[in-house]
Amino acid sequence: MLAIMNNRKTTAILLVHCPDQPGIIAVVTDFITVNGGNILYLDQHVDTVQNVFFMRVEWELERFVIPKDKIGEYFDTLYASKYRMYFRLYFNDYKPRMAVFVSKISHCLYDLLARYTAEEWNVEIPLIVSNHTDLEHVAVRFGIPFHVFPVTKDNKATQEAAELKLLKESRIDFIVLARYMQIITGDIINAYPDKIINIHHSFLPAFAGAKPYHAAFERGVKLIGATSHYVTTELDAGPIIEQDIVRISHKDTVNTLIRKGRDLEKIVLARAVEKHIERKVLTCKNKTVVFN
Amino acid sequence: MLAIMNNRKTTAILLVHCPDQPGIIAVVTDFITVNGGNILYLDQHVDTVQNVFFMRVEWELERFVIPKDKIGEYFDTLYASKYRMYFRLYFNDYKPRMAVFVSKISHCLYDLLARYTAEEWNVEIPLIVSNHTDLEHVAVRFGIPFHVFPVTKDNKATQEAAELKLLKESRIDFIVLARYMQIITGDIINAYPDKIINIHHSFLPAFAGAKPYHAAFERGVKLIGATSHYVTTELDAGPIIEQDIVRISHKDTVNTLIRKGRDLEKIVLARAVEKHIERKVLTCKNKTVVFN
Amino acid sequence: MLAIMNNRKTTAILLVHCPDQPGIIAVVTDFITVNGGNILYLDQHVDTVQNVFFMRVEWELERFVIPKDKIGEYFDTLYASKYRMYFRLYFNDYKPRMAVFVSKISHCLYDLLARYTAEEWNVEIPLIVSNHTDLEHVAVRFGIPFHVFPVTKDNKATQEAAELKLLKESRIDFIVLARYMQIITGDIINAYPDKIINIHHSFLPAFAGAKPYHAAFERGVKLIGATSHYVTTELDAGPIIEQDIVRISHKDTVNTLIRKGRDLEKIVLARAVEKHIERKVLTCKNKTVVFN
Amino acid sequence: MLAIMNNRKTTAILLVHCPDQPGIIAVVTDFITVNGGNILYLDQHVDTVQNVFFMRVEWELERFVIPKDKIGEYFDTLYASKYRMYFRLYFNDYKPRMAVFVSKISHCLYDLLARYTAEEWNVEIPLIVSNHTDLEHVAVRFGIPFHVFPVTKDNKATQEAAELKLLKESRIDFIVLARYMQIITGDIINAYPDKIINIHHSFLPAFAGAKPYHAAFERGVKLIGATSHYVTTELDAGPIIEQDIVRISHKDTVNTLIRKGRDLEKIVLARAVEKHIERKVLTCKNKTVVFN
Repeated sequence: MLAIMNNRKTTAILLVHCPDQPGIIAVVTDFITVNGGNILYLDQHVDTVQNVFFMRVEWELERFVIPKDKIGEYFDTLYASKYRMYFRLYFNDYKPRMAVFVSKISHCLYDLLARYTAEEWNVEIPLIVSNHTDLEHVAVRFGIPFHVFPVTKDNKATQEAAELKLLKESRIDFIVLARYMQIITGDIINAYPDKIINIHHSFLPAFAGAKPYHAAFERGVKLIGATSHYVTTELDAGPIIEQDIVRISHKDTVNTLIRKGRDLEKIVLARAVEKHIERKVLTCKNKTVVFN
Repeated sequence: MLAIMNNRKTTAILLVHCPDQPGIIAVVTDFITVNGGNILYLDQHVDTVQNVFFMRVEWELERFVIPKDKIGEYFDTLYASKYRMYFRLYFNDYKPRMAVFVSKISHCLYDLLARYTAEEWNVEIPLIVSNHTDLEHVAVRFGIPFHVFPVTKDNKATQEAAELKLLKESRIDFIVLARYMQIITGDIINAYPDKIINIHHSFLPAFAGAKPYHAAFERGVKLIGATSHYVTTELDAGPIIEQDIVRISHKDTVNTLIRKGRDLEKIVLARAVEKHIERKVLTCKNKTVVFN
Repeated sequence: MLAIMNNRKTTAILLVHCPDQPGIIAVVTDFITVNGGNILYLDQHVDTVQNVFFMRVEWELERFVIPKDKIGEYFDTLYASKYRMYFRLYFNDYKPRMAVFVSKISHCLYDLLARYTAEEWNVEIPLIVSNHTDLEHVAVRFGIPFHVFPVTKDNKATQEAAELKLLKESRIDFIVLARYMQIITGDIINAYPDKIINIHHSFLPAFAGAKPYHAAFERGVKLIGATSHYVTTELDAGPIIEQDIVRISHKDTVNTLIRKGRDLEKIVLARAVEKHIERKVLTCKNKTVVFN
Repeated sequence: MLAIMNNRKTTAILLVHCPDQPGIIAVVTDFITVNGGNILYLDQHVDTVQNVFFMRVEWELERFVIPKDKIGEYFDTLYASKYRMYFRLYFNDYKPRMAVFVSKISHCLYDLLARYTAEEWNVEIPLIVSNHTDLEHVAVRFGIPFHVFPVTKDNKATQEAAELKLLKESRIDFIVLARYMQIITGDIINAYPDKIINIHHSFLPAFAGAKPYHAAFERGVKLIGATSHYVTTELDAGPIIEQDIVRISHKDTVNTLIRKGRDLEKIVLARAVEKHIERKVLTCKNKTVVFN
């Protein structure tokens, strides 16, 4: 049921969460199959602590009798209110529009743009935002508009307002902070709930905040980590999407931690972005459900 | 939907595989919920290459209207033949009976018996079989009958017949080869299809056969592995249940590979045995589906 | 230069750390080779931040001209004071004496005793200490004296004094806290500096203190860890010897975290204990150098 | 002793291997320190099976009394012949010149060029060679000459001769096959012994040859791997520099194996290339010693 990458048939993707109750899977799959949809993917999860049911289902629309632009309405009317479902509906023929925010460090940016250019992902990258000009040359190499918003204490509110205006005008769906070394504040975060993906260069919750590699070196840990998470208004505390680690030893210096961390950061960020693009991440109470 | 360990309510576990076709999940979950079963766990998989559907569903029997001893018959009559399902039905109040085969190396045996004694697993270990007496003291420590069947070229058929007789008399459900250094032949294998779990001390298919650590050292690999698989009549070629690796370096000798491999072997074997006991492994055409 | 496990020749092991300065390796290796020692192992490290040199060297004594009981004195006189070296000298024909402290959870204890009984390690385990009687049956199985010291707020000082007396009388060299659920206080810690090895069931410094699996579940991390460290008077803050992690997902409950954590804990603890027994751990300013 | 990345002082790097014998470390470190060299890095290894000693030592030349262009001659005369040493001498102020060979798949190429452009490595990439034009656009983005040599059965010898001529004229020191889908034959291999680094998309020796992901899928393994090795005339059988794996499951298709493998391939290749550039790989009898 894994969607095949080069599948060109149009599919609908339905993400649902609601209070757990018997028979929900049967109801949803019945809705799809009775109306002529061919299910390609189904995964579900029950959080037995919160008693919440989560589901992701994807089906081919070719012979589906409900018109594409009416599916959401029908599902809402027939099931969502009845079962108190929170749901989102996507179609695979729409490319989500992703903005990348960067500062001076290039490895995550290169990695994202290489995947984009090689068409690994079903995504559009209409623009890159930065508070510095250092990485403009990278944007130029890949032919992507690069917008510089230098941020100081005094102009932060104004600059963020300008950024938000640009994001809205460019119809940006989600934002990736690719080692963006500026704290983003409320207005942007609130405009993109669970839609801003950050990479933090530590195994959160250890070493939140600034200079995690220095802190890891100081503490003498034997593994370093990276964490990709959705940004919330509390720093480095949003729902975690993906984490990984790499082994280090007493031979490592802060400099070699930074070097080893680079590969980790770009891979962990890419995995999180991929899951987000594939509509496989659901959030609930500061935790994520990440389907395979 | 993960079954909670210390859940004492009786549950039924249904494992199904059949040709993929629309609506099977709906049919099966409907069968359970309509008849009063509360689903605790559901996972499913479609092998899109073979077009085979796999499913594991577990539900509480407390208010289930079909008597426990009739569930299999009803499901067979109503659905299995109609959908050409191959199915198995288990109940969590039965402890599967596991025989352990060993030779001279103790680490896997100790690990299995420690888990058994600590009641980590829902399993019974009525006996240990060996072709040597070396590990009898371990069996004695844990109070488990130890049966010695010394095997030579000449007596192999006779000894295996005697082993099989013992296994049958002791109502053994499945066998774990915990570094048993004797090739088991057809009669036992055929009596326990997908019910004999072996641990091979390499990352199969690399280094099948004898002395894999020596071969790994010779080749100069940078990782060594262990593989747990069901035993088939073709040596080291049965369906793989679990694999893992550990990093090595030029500093390792064959002796240190053997030492590092020990931890790997016992953990990989234990993971496979646990999945088997939890009825989470399905096999089809020499491959496994291992549910979480 | 890796010492071969079944090497029965007597060797000396010298651990050194001192301010870094040119030529130390030459001086030490010269001391050994000129006097007829055959070097089996040499590893060294320079902490360029603290400017400290670390070294571990092991050599065969067969043709070494300095008598075994004079080596320390000679090395001290000729080199240690000159180069301001802190050094320790061990011989492989002495088995360090290890005490195991446990409470109610058995997996680490079983793992340690299985290795001990199988003679994986060059160690003696003369006794087990516990604040509960629950695991006495494990000690009995392996024939090791089990001493119970029930600890309450009121009797803690007295009991620790009694424990310390027992440890001294039994000539215990180092202590392993194998999921010992009592905080050990100053007198014992000060009597065994860098000689008490604890296993903490989290990826420190994340989730220090009580109930780390609950905290990890609450935070929604995607990996859980275990950390083995030397005990200092600051809780969960001593020098880290070894860490590792295992991947988890949204499907895991606190119960399955605890189950998955068990395997992690016992392996991470065993790796640390092994390094300690092999005299491959040096500490300096709350960090460790762990040689291969 | 780890060379600090942004260290701008000139250093010499000496790689040595020779029959193991007492006192070699003392001799070599003495040679350096007596003549005014400050040792920044020293690592050594003894292969106790082959009885071969390996060493890598790096020192600052600032106050070294032997002129840079005479060091090799002096070391050869004074020590190398006496101790039957095979040695190589490098200086960190020379950037090794690396050619990249590619075909149609871009992820490894992008990754190498991003590191190059970000100056992660002390390397020069004067040219890219390909048997196809597909990736010319990548070379153009990064401003690196791209040379196309279409290879057929009939013209292979001629084309390889032309490639070799280009490599020689461009003073190429080593070659990276970044998913180059053509078997390179004897003349080029013999001209670059232990200087051609390939990435093979399997955990060698498993799944050597063509289509390893298909073979891995067919066998039902639970981990897939990637292997970086020096190219020898025997296909996929040269000395292994680095390997790593990623966990897969029954949910993966050949397509998702290919996707997951991409990240693995580029990281494993980059680690091997980095070690090669840092002069930390020594080879002997089809195995590598890879220093930290």
